[in-house]
Amino acid sequence: MKLFCAQSDLSANLSLVSRAIPSRPTHPVLANVLLIADAAAQRVSLTAFDLSLGIRTSFAAHVETGGEITLPAKLLNDIVSRLPEGEISLADEAGSADASSESSDVLQATLTCSSGRYQMRGLSAVEFPELPVIEDGEVVYLPVEALVQGLQGSLFATSADETKQILTGVHLTLQQGSLEFAATDGHRLAVVQTTGETPDAQTGGAIADTELTVTIPAKTLRELERMVGMRPAEDAVALHLNPSQAVFEWADQRLTSRLLEGQYPNYRQLIPRQFSRQMTVERRLFLGALERIAVLADQKNNVVKLSLDLEQQEIALSVDAQDVGSGREVIPAQVSGDSLDVAFNVKYLMDGLKALNTSEIQMQLNSATTPVVLTPLGSIKMTYLVMPVQIRN
Amino acid sequence: MKLFCAQSDLSANLSLVSRAIPSRPTHPVLANVLLIADAAAQRVSLTAFDLSLGIRTSFAAHVETGGEITLPAKLLNDIVSRLPEGEISLADEAGSADASSESSDVLQATLTCSSGRYQMRGLSAVEFPELPVIEDGEVVYLPVEALVQGLQGSLFATSADETKQILTGVHLTLQQGSLEFAATDGHRLAVVQTTGETPDAQTGGAIADTELTVTIPAKTLRELERMVGMRPAEDAVALHLNPSQAVFEWADQRLTSRLLEGQYPNYRQLIPRQFSRQMTVERRLFLGALERIAVLADQKNNVVKLSLDLEQQEIALSVDAQDVGSGREVIPAQVSGDSLDVAFNVKYLMDGLKALNTSEIQMQLNSATTPVVLTPLGSIKMTYLVMPVQIRN
Repeated sequence: MKLFCAQSDLSANLSLVSRAIPSRPTHPVLANVLLIADAAAQRVSLTAFDLSLGIRTSFAAHVETGGEITLPAKLLNDIVSRLPEGEISLADEAGSADASSESSDVLQATLTCSSGRYQMRGLSAVEFPELPVIEDGEVVYLPVEALVQGLQGSLFATSADETKQILTGVHLTLQQGSLEFAATDGHRLAVVQTTGETPDAQTGGAIADTELTVTIPAKTLRELERMVGMRPAEDAVALHLNPSQAVFEWADQRLTSRLLEGQYPNYRQLIPRQFSRQMTVERRLFLGALERIAVLADQKNNVVKLSLDLEQQEIALSVDAQDVGSGREVIPAQVSGDSLDVAFNVKYLMDGLKALNTSEIQMQLNSATTPVVLTPLGSIKMTYLVMPVQIRN
Repeated sequence: MKLFCAQSDLSANLSLVSRAIPSRPTHPVLANVLLIADAAAQRVSLTAFDLSLGIRTSFAAHVETGGEITLPAKLLNDIVSRLPEGEISLADEAGSADASSESSDVLQATLTCSSGRYQMRGLSAVEFPELPVIEDGEVVYLPVEALVQGLQGSLFATSADETKQILTGVHLTLQQGSLEFAATDGHRLAVVQTTGETPDAQTGGAIADTELTVTIPAKTLRELERMVGMRPAEDAVALHLNPSQAVFEWADQRLTSRLLEGQYPNYRQLIPRQFSRQMTVERRLFLGALERIAVLADQKNNVVKLSLDLEQQEIALSVDAQDVGSGREVIPAQVSGDSLDVAFNVKYLMDGLKALNTSEIQMQLNSATTPVVLTPLGSIKMTYLVMPVQIRN
């Protein structure tokens, strides 16, 4: 193998795939990146795979001799990212002069730049696990914008508790052109509806007529959000599914993920259909006041009290942390229904308000002990449900 | 006490003094900031003091009723920094309507802004320790530029090892208008000479005719560097000294620090007077190559080998981390004296090159086992001495 490429190309692509390098690899080869130089295509592909999340990218290069090798990802990335801009070359023993140790699994690659050269030990590409490929499964095409919207509106509400496996993922439901993202950690629930599938020219726009549901780990989807967010929102992302794997493909990149097993909670039944109270408030004003109140609430179980005042058409936010101090803020709101005092975990409210992302938001309530729903006033169809907490006086 | 001020003034000054709030206060009042409202001067001063480092700042405010109180620094800072811009008011019980608990040490202050109000518990100002004041000691005036230069060129070389107390500080020597900063952790030594004292109009330019030496904790000086760096470099900083304390004063700010006790090493005798070898190199080129080499050196005791090549007029940097890989970079240099191989801790070289801060630097050497000196080629008079390490093959 011998190839020449731009330092910036190799560096950018190494950073991308490095996110799938496990911090504590269970096998030495998993700490490596698989590098495949394709002489026919004049392209180099990089792959990293922690057995759950896999990332593959490719870029154009001048490939003199094709070949493949795996190299320590962190070391290679740390060196390449510090190289000055310009052309660099990478060769293994087959591509370089001294092909001494053919039989060994331990290989050596040489990286050459204008100012110097680095040799590093790699492992044979045959040791690298195959990235999952789905050939027969379902395929759907997701518009990038819808995908990003759905991820931004749901990922934050997933659980970080590894004992509740299924809740550490986002639940996707695809049905007749609509794609729904749902996430809950048991305390709050975020649901985003987007226009799902793009009919694709290549497949003639075949749309799955059955409901398709999968739960994909949040860790994977955060990488997807990051990678897709780097590109202009023109392409669609192809999502291939089989019972145990999801593969996202677009442009020169592929991201594979195992699916989470288990029954996702039937979240739709949690969302009340009718509300006796409602208020509309400027999102930034509400969030700003909550952030100040949170400083004191942090001293007292994070509980903030909200008082809806129908007569004054305002809401009051208050906290009383006995030994430390107390705070109260009042902001204008359009309130309908009777006045009500209701308490929340301030962090859950703030999380939701950050994700809702419109200038005004609506809050719908029934009582101080039943689920409350926040929705953005705008184009995005998002529902954020939080349970109130008990008011302690 | 009752005062009105701009949110931005209170927030900026709270952030400044908060650096002197200890993370684990030995007494509750040390977690508080002392706030003094002066009705005559129409100014508010803030003081924080961890018994070693003390910071006092003041700013203009509309003081309706003078007074003093101490308030929890983190809580106050966290709330004030999140308030919207605009006027805010601060009042304690004496300044507000309900003066109920006069006898108690626990006081209450009320912070009012356009959208709400916060009450927080404070402690009486009489509990707050006095910030050291030096009335009879030596006074010298330091130009801000010289001070910043001296700190930037020395602070990085102080020791972090608390068992070597005296080495955790910077040693200052003031003598006839020249101010010298020195720092060493036992492995390397940085010395910066600056034009020290500014004759000051008020004192008629009295210059200490005896040599004045003190060792000031690096922690304090890092704060000084930060605070002084925020201001335009026009003012001089007054340094008051007595045997146990240093007080820096400028504009509206004061920083006090205990001095470190003990005999500072006689570092001047460590610096060789003559050298048999010398090389001049472009600093960024040298540093860039070291940063890449460091990625591999990190795997092997941080040792980098430098080979000075008289014939080629270049230096080669190399590292060989057996199980991982090896690297070699060559950069052009003006070399005089015989060729030589010498090894260093790569981190110490990088630290020095970052601080030297000119486009070219000079390295002077005698042998592979004697101290090596790096100096900037430019206006700043700085000496950075490093000990080579043994070359292992």
